[in-house]
Amino acid sequence: MSNLVFDESSSNRESSRGYAWWFSGDTFERAAAAERQVTRRHTLRQHMASHPGRLTVIYFGILVMVSTAMLLLPQSTPQGETTSFSTALFTAVSALSTCGISIVNSTTHWTLFGQGVLLVSVQMGGLGVMTFASMIALAVNHHMKATQRLLTATELGTTKLSEIRGVLTVVITTTFFIESITFVALFPGLLSINRTDFGKTAWEALFFAVMSYNNAGFTPDGAGLYVNSWAVGMPIMAAAFCGTLGFPVILNLMRCARRHVPPRRWSLHTKVTLTMTFLIVIASLTWFLLVEWDNPSLFKDADVETRLRHAVVAAVMPRSSGFDLSWVPQVSEATKVFMSFVMFIGGGSTSTAGGIRVTTFAVILLVCRASFTGHKDVNAFRRRIHTNVAMTAVSITTTCLMLVLAASIALMLVANVPLSSALFDACSAFGLGGYTVGVAREDNPAALAILAITMVVGRLGPMTIAYSISRPRALEAVRYPTEPLVVG
Amino acid sequence: MSNLVFDESSSNRESSRGYAWWFSGDTFERAAAAERQVTRRHTLRQHMASHPGRLTVIYFGILVMVSTAMLLLPQSTPQGETTSFSTALFTAVSALSTCGISIVNSTTHWTLFGQGVLLVSVQMGGLGVMTFASMIALAVNHHMKATQRLLTATELGTTKLSEIRGVLTVVITTTFFIESITFVALFPGLLSINRTDFGKTAWEALFFAVMSYNNAGFTPDGAGLYVNSWAVGMPIMAAAFCGTLGFPVILNLMRCARRHVPPRRWSLHTKVTLTMTFLIVIASLTWFLLVEWDNPSLFKDADVETRLRHAVVAAVMPRSSGFDLSWVPQVSEATKVFMSFVMFIGGGSTSTAGGIRVTTFAVILLVCRASFTGHKDVNAFRRRIHTNVAMTAVSITTTCLMLVLAASIALMLVANVPLSSALFDACSAFGLGGYTVGVAREDNPAALAILAITMVVGRLGPMTIAYSISRPRALEAVRYPTEPLVVG
Ligand SMILES: [K+]
Ligand SMILES: [K+]
Repeated sequence: MSNLVFDESSSNRESSRGYAWWFSGDTFERAAAAERQVTRRHTLRQHMASHPGRLTVIYFGILVMVSTAMLLLPQSTPQGETTSFSTALFTAVSALSTCGISIVNSTTHWTLFGQGVLLVSVQMGGLGVMTFASMIALAVNHHMKATQRLLTATELGTTKLSEIRGVLTVVITTTFFIESITFVALFPGLLSINRTDFGKTAWEALFFAVMSYNNAGFTPDGAGLYVNSWAVGMPIMAAAFCGTLGFPVILNLMRCARRHVPPRRWSLHTKVTLTMTFLIVIASLTWFLLVEWDNPSLFKDADVETRLRHAVVAAVMPRSSGFDLSWVPQVSEATKVFMSFVMFIGGGSTSTAGGIRVTTFAVILLVCRASFTGHKDVNAFRRRIHTNVAMTAVSITTTCLMLVLAASIALMLVANVPLSSALFDACSAFGLGGYTVGVAREDNPAALAILAITMVVGRLGPMTIAYSISRPRALEAVRYPTEPLVVG
Repeated sequence: MSNLVFDESSSNRESSRGYAWWFSGDTFERAAAAERQVTRRHTLRQHMASHPGRLTVIYFGILVMVSTAMLLLPQSTPQGETTSFSTALFTAVSALSTCGISIVNSTTHWTLFGQGVLLVSVQMGGLGVMTFASMIALAVNHHMKATQRLLTATELGTTKLSEIRGVLTVVITTTFFIESITFVALFPGLLSINRTDFGKTAWEALFFAVMSYNNAGFTPDGAGLYVNSWAVGMPIMAAAFCGTLGFPVILNLMRCARRHVPPRRWSLHTKVTLTMTFLIVIASLTWFLLVEWDNPSLFKDADVETRLRHAVVAAVMPRSSGFDLSWVPQVSEATKVFMSFVMFIGGGSTSTAGGIRVTTFAVILLVCRASFTGHKDVNAFRRRIHTNVAMTAVSITTTCLMLVLAASIALMLVANVPLSSALFDACSAFGLGGYTVGVAREDNPAALAILAITMVVGRLGPMTIAYSISRPRALEAVRYPTEPLVVG
């Protein structure tokens, strides 16, 4: 075990020069350092960097406290209004987890200062989760590669350590790059709506740009109705869509575009994420066109172009972004269940979207496909998916499904709402969708607490599970004999 | 592959003498026969015996047709009443799948002849599923042992071929033995209720004995209120509980008792089934005592002994038996969700109970435990669970969860009921629980059709999935390299 660790980390050393803190999320690195008898200095920075899971919790914990305190300041609320502690805490958690469920009107309840706090919270939450999730993903893969070497040395050929150079820099650069493009794209549309008020337009464009890429559904215009115009809606939707893909996909796509790499040589993660996202959006679009076509709340004014635009928005938005929420409580009960399912799946790994992540769901489906076709290997796009990844996907899905069910039942008990509404809000909180059908209410702190906890679980849960599962442990002491067990 | 097959089947030949048709569910046997150049006679019996999955479908298909026709006969319904085709078909499916959801009052709508048809249908359905499921389980294990030999010859030491001697005989013997005991145990209690009417008592005792062991919740006394007396309720509950364990468990327990084998040497399947069943009943009991203690419909008359008896009945019955349904529509919404979950899990494998089966759920939990503790092997009670079993469990759970969700959404659309009711009835039909909260109604043939299909899926689905997954196929042509995939 220790030799293995040493090999792996020393082979990584070359390619990771200058990004040592990045890699040190992998505990192998530390073990290797110990082996080489290098004096270990237990500085705070080292300690924190070697525990990305713990670091994430500390980062979000501090930010929630700061953000809640800022929202409670008198400057955040206009004269005459007050903010209760539970409202401030819920809003802070909602912003930092980029969920975006709001229980007060973001335009009238908050001053420009308060909206600024929301903006910075969402931006810090988004950057934080992208960075930490990427760190954890790297640590997980790093460990898996090391484990794999034990199995077959040749399989290490697929290791692409150059991929992980300077991810933090690129996370920040990409975020601000996409947000800037969105800002510029939004400007003309918002300017025409605001009748040439430059200051207001700039603020709204900035607000929408940050909110959309980070998939937090707060809106500066209260009801979010601007989204219904193409000039405003499309840039927001495009930015939100980019935000749900997740960092490894964006990075891989940008690199492949620069080097003219054909789609068939994209990474497995990119292919799986894009395929699954595409399938979910198509399924969603089909559902809304079939089931909600005659819903007067969703498709009022009835001309086909409006209906199509509404259907597209309804298909893309609920997955994580949560803009344009006016129509949500008006959908049929069956659509609420369907949307709950879509929100539960969520977006891409290491993105600002929530849920169990599309890749997790894809792996579950691939395990089923492999079983039904009688294969032991779980394959996708001519690549084999590691057993650990499959087990992690099963664990994440099972754990999260039970948590969402428990949260739904708890909401039914404390808020006395029907199952469909409780499930919708629980999935919206867990999947960071940002919609609500009325369970999240200022006057029900118990329901707010359940939803806030669900948001935190949705934000940190799946990646923490993935990390805790991939943590290196002692080798199996005993291998037990198998015995038949009848299932099904 | 062919040598392996030959080895395995020839080693089995000795122990399977006299039960050749039983083993021939395993297609290996056929391959071996071909290899030894024995002339194959394609008799109908051979063909059917070599495809237990197909045979099951044919068996149940014919019985549904016969039973529906018999229920439509004028003799089945009292003078003045008529039975529609959809009612007869639904009742036949409900009886043959041992689900027991009834849309008409079994006492007043059916004559003694009609009740006899129900009785025989339930008995044939119960015997059929126990026999076929055992056959399929044997074929699955048979195949797994063969595959395993390829991996490690030593692991075949755990093969206990003597276990599978004469299962059909024992299925029938055990069934009639337990039903006879139940009949005798029920007689005094029913006699005192019926005020010494021997004929009526004998009929009711027979009816309850068959219904309870086969876990079909039809009752000869309409509302099923007799169950509320200890003298009638306890024998019924005990028989229903035995019925949910599944044949391998009962057989193993009986053998162990005869040979004075201590519990720690029970089979893995027995240990897992009993532990999981125990945990679910305890969780159920806790739920009803905590959440429904003050429900006047469930716990009326309010003395503690009555409340406890109701809680025990409520904890044990919904898992599959479906007696005493008067209180079900009165439970809180949250309890409906909890009961749906319990019914979805269902009972033991190869039993008359439905659901994904407790062992399937246990394997999913064991996969999670293995992941969280950083193990690659999925262990339980110092035995390793085969990867194929784990993959089968994941496939069954995923497929069935989606089917139940789809059925719930379909029920919401056709019957315009809230999600909790639709989910409850879908889970009740899938898990063969036999309760209904009013979605199954004579005047809604679309809802009846959806529920009937769900029952058939619940009856045949999981074991068919397990069998189709274990079917031997061509070996993997290519083993692809792995590539990292980020989940969570
Ligand atoms: K959101
Ligand atoms: K039943």
